Amino acid sequence: MTTPSLTPAQDHAPADAGGAAIEAFLKPKSIALIGAAPAEQRSIRGALMRVLRRGGFDGRIVPVNPSYAEINGTPCYPSIGAVGFAVDLAVIAIPAEFVCDAAAECAAAGVRAAIIISSGFAEESAEKAHLQLRLSEVARRTGMRICGPNCEGFYNLLDGVAATFSAAAEPAEAENQAIVGAGRVAVVAQSGGLGFAMLNRGRALGLDFTHIVTTGNECDLTAVDFIGHFATDAVSNVIIAYLEEIRDVAGFRLAAERARASGKMIIVIKIGQSEPGRRAALAHTGSITGAAADLDAMFADLGVLVAVEADEAVAAALAFVTNPISAGRRVGIVTTAGGAGTVLCESLAGAGFAIPALSEPLQCLLRPTFPNYGSAANPVDVTAQGIFTGGAMRALEVLLDGDEVDLVVFAATLSGERSISIDIDALRELAARSAKPILIYSYTLPSGFARQALRRAGLPVFAHIRDLVAAAHALTFDRRRRAGRLAETGLHSS
Amino acid sequence: MTTPSLTPAQDHAPADAGGAAIEAFLKPKSIALIGAAPAEQRSIRGALMRVLRRGGFDGRIVPVNPSYAEINGTPCYPSIGAVGFAVDLAVIAIPAEFVCDAAAECAAAGVRAAIIISSGFAEESAEKAHLQLRLSEVARRTGMRICGPNCEGFYNLLDGVAATFSAAAEPAEAENQAIVGAGRVAVVAQSGGLGFAMLNRGRALGLDFTHIVTTGNECDLTAVDFIGHFATDAVSNVIIAYLEEIRDVAGFRLAAERARASGKMIIVIKIGQSEPGRRAALAHTGSITGAAADLDAMFADLGVLVAVEADEAVAAALAFVTNPISAGRRVGIVTTAGGAGTVLCESLAGAGFAIPALSEPLQCLLRPTFPNYGSAANPVDVTAQGIFTGGAMRALEVLLDGDEVDLVVFAATLSGERSISIDIDALRELAARSAKPILIYSYTLPSGFARQALRRAGLPVFAHIRDLVAAAHALTFDRRRRAGRLAETGLHSS
Repeated sequence: MTTPSLTPAQDHAPADAGGAAIEAFLKPKSIALIGAAPAEQRSIRGALMRVLRRGGFDGRIVPVNPSYAEINGTPCYPSIGAVGFAVDLAVIAIPAEFVCDAAAECAAAGVRAAIIISSGFAEESAEKAHLQLRLSEVARRTGMRICGPNCEGFYNLLDGVAATFSAAAEPAEAENQAIVGAGRVAVVAQSGGLGFAMLNRGRALGLDFTHIVTTGNECDLTAVDFIGHFATDAVSNVIIAYLEEIRDVAGFRLAAERARASGKMIIVIKIGQSEPGRRAALAHTGSITGAAADLDAMFADLGVLVAVEADEAVAAALAFVTNPISAGRRVGIVTTAGGAGTVLCESLAGAGFAIPALSEPLQCLLRPTFPNYGSAANPVDVTAQGIFTGGAMRALEVLLDGDEVDLVVFAATLSGERSISIDIDALRELAARSAKPILIYSYTLPSGFARQALRRAGLPVFAHIRDLVAAAHALTFDRRRRAGRLAETGLHSS
Repeated sequence: MTTPSLTPAQDHAPADAGGAAIEAFLKPKSIALIGAAPAEQRSIRGALMRVLRRGGFDGRIVPVNPSYAEINGTPCYPSIGAVGFAVDLAVIAIPAEFVCDAAAECAAAGVRAAIIISSGFAEESAEKAHLQLRLSEVARRTGMRICGPNCEGFYNLLDGVAATFSAAAEPAEAENQAIVGAGRVAVVAQSGGLGFAMLNRGRALGLDFTHIVTTGNECDLTAVDFIGHFATDAVSNVIIAYLEEIRDVAGFRLAAERARASGKMIIVIKIGQSEPGRRAALAHTGSITGAAADLDAMFADLGVLVAVEADEAVAAALAFVTNPISAGRRVGIVTTAGGAGTVLCESLAGAGFAIPALSEPLQCLLRPTFPNYGSAANPVDVTAQGIFTGGAMRALEVLLDGDEVDLVVFAATLSGERSISIDIDALRELAARSAKPILIYSYTLPSGFARQALRRAGLPVFAHIRDLVAAAHALTFDRRRRAGRLAETGLHSS
């Protein structure tokens, strides 16, 4: 059972005035866990304690639960009122019917912000929607900002604040290190599962993140508030947003304009294209998705990139933080396997890219770099031999130096477990001095060895052709919007 | 430089009469390597020896190269004529201008079949096309069947015959074991790189393969000959074909009809939808791609599934070998995260699937299985709690037993490195007794642990939403064609 969503308390704090509150929310020095349980307990409450500790939070953890005297070696308080010192953030994970009172107690005790993990509000039924209205009123009345309910918490990776029960907020393992020198991504999601899934998937590709914030039903703070914050912060270069509903369209416009002015990219996964999708969004976070056509026009107007799903959004972000923008949609393909070049051709042409036949002078420059049975036409097939003879690097150089393509795709096989067949140093140098994007595609699944070697060199690898197409699209869409911005912001050093 | 392709020697052996020859070709007892080099040499010739030995070939390896007296402990002969005993298969990897003579010598020495790795024929230039014509004539005149030139060899996984230089033909590692109880896939590809890339990508998903055959320029044996062979063999359940050109359309029709009669699926990655793609195919294997519309009509008529690229083909094969067909396009979604259910909804609805709202009686059956804040509407959101309480399994059961959907998608998070949150035994039992397909989607990237546990249980996992859509499509397209066939062939035991 669901009811229409409730309008959040927009009137007391415009999106752009919440900066300090959001800063405090994301970087608390002390965190109370309302409904705390021991870290070893197999429950959402246990996971909250476990993930927060593992994340390396160096502030004070304050467990609140009348059932315990201490939890994991830390004194536990029967109520927030009994704590006796100021707490910055309360993470509330108790049954829905007790949440409003607990939130009011937190505000009374001087807590500055709260995040409500508990579900059972507007997404459940009309009766429960009233509980959510009461929660909005607590925020409005007291000034304590509230995120949620029905969310999965947040993870501030810059400061190691993992106020979430998501297992995806474990610190990255060695094989999931970020691409050296690339920019960073903030995620704002009305779905906890998807928000943290993007962290999980993005890390596997070498993306570096600043924050994951999940906002659930948005009784007070909305996704737009956080998008507005990241649009002007000093550390995020891309914002990926999963939105089932935009509750503050004017705030979104303002945030998008600020992001554009800062040379940042906003990528939106927007729900509501299909009737079943709209129904699912309503059941999920009580959202009424907007009219798709109106929103699409607004996104286009604001230079916001729309993605259909998480992998596409992550691939677009990856391209954006590692490459200069493309001056146009003419793609040059260099491949060590004719079939991979041919399939890339079909997929890119199908997505509206041009793969122009190269001029005879350019082909003349290319031909000496690979065997006669290769091809200089575009795709440039340097053949498997082209790897050993350096033909691949030379072909990339010719395409980058010439003026016949705007974007270069290099297709190779990177599945070797102990060696890879490309000269990483040469490729890094080429990429660093080129004003054109270079996207690397591995037609076999890249090995961990290859991924790590290329990450250290600052080079991302795309393993799925559809992700590569999304990446190319991200670098070419609305070129005019971004042209001239990059030098100012220094986002792309190439 | 390229020239129009050459018509192969169709006249001496119709596609359906080559069965014995192809059997002998794929399962030789002795293999001569013409142009052999030591396994440790970093070259295509060295790789041929290395891969053949590692593949575990238990027949006789006969190196032929006047430069060596022995190679890797095996006597090396100056010419095939000097060998003095019968050889089944010659793998020829010498410069193009010497290939025709070598092939003729092989035929004279009683070699039954040859595969030409060397490039530099019709794909290179008009002059070199004559070399290929001469090669066709050798086949026609002598009766020795020839595969290639300009190919990457083949891999018979059933008998461990790795007559290829592809590193992807290494034996599968532990984490790449096949899904227990699933059917097997044969790959026929006019591109060596893509053919073996499908082995590499398919194995990562748990697909089991019978053969990878790459046919290159097809001076004699064509992709259609091999498709015809696998259409009636005793071991392949699916044939994936990468085709830049179908040289024998009548033969393809016959093969497709036989595959249909055997309850087998043919999945074609067909090149030539775009002008750049057609140009690339011409440069790659000298192929003239057919008129796309005509071919699409033929594929539809024959019940051949068309895929755009390798991942889609592999996902479709995976669905086919592990699931019964779907009686229709109504999808039920069970999810542990509302956002994942919502995005699945959008992607499946966008691809033409129905995600019907469930009837009130069915929703009544579902509601007791998860918390009130979940949703029974479809997507059925059992929430993260639904995992612990068994709600997910019960919801799957209700959907499978009811008559409101034809196909069930289960979305969960399977990224746990040491445990997974679903009851595998219960899921296996459900899948085994259901006549409806169940596709599992992990919205986080599944861990190696989860993949292996599910493989042992016979359950595939889809990690990419677009692959899942391709899989669902494979199970629902042209249902009538396949209805009633499965019981006969026993392909699907469920």
